[in-house]
Amino acid sequence: MSSIAKTPKPPYYAVIFTSIKNKDADGYNEISVRMVELASQQPGFLGIESARNEIGITISYWESEAAFMNWKKNTEHLIAQQMGKEKWYQYFRERVCKVEREYGTEKKEKK
Amino acid sequence: MSSIAKTPKPPYYAVIFTSIKNKDADGYNEISVRMVELASQQPGFLGIESARNEIGITISYWESEAAFMNWKKNTEHLIAQQMGKEKWYQYFRERVCKVEREYGTEKKEKK
Repeated sequence: MSSIAKTPKPPYYAVIFTSIKNKDADGYNEISVRMVELASQQPGFLGIESARNEIGITISYWESEAAFMNWKKNTEHLIAQQMGKEKWYQYFRERVCKVEREYGTEKKEKK
Repeated sequence: MSSIAKTPKPPYYAVIFTSIKNKDADGYNEISVRMVELASQQPGFLGIESARNEIGITISYWESEAAFMNWKKNTEHLIAQQMGKEKWYQYFRERVCKVEREYGTEKKEKK
């Protein structure tokens, strides 16, 4: 399940992770769920959004670049990143972005 | 169909559009296809990525914020934006971001 993140007034950071999975991606689902749970507990975590069809897109939002960099160094996350590179992803890109402006419909409660 | 965008060395811009569609979203598919086609012809357009499950995520990449702002003012796009607000989307957020860093696996040809 994914919903639209409720983020504060910019600036803050977004990390866009786009990937194409290998057909054989054993353990991927369990570990993604665990990574979302673990990321949510990190200082400076603001929210996460994801969707997958032909490609997968996951965007995590952070108070600062430093908050994201700390998460990247988390031990359990380092192991998952390594498995991603070696086993799960045929291809991926990660883009670290500063969110400068945000707008849209009125913020609602998560469904 | 969506593939992973091949973007240049940062900095450049990313516009993250996340949405939840209404059940009744007549005309949405045809007009989205047309908008991708039209966006691709704009000066400064770098690529687009999208996926949808519970939520839809579309990220368009631009050489500069000005290139994206020009696209936002395109007449046919203005009409589509209006239909999005009035008919298609139950909820949406748009985030304008400066991409500062990018990394990942070797860039491959589009599949």
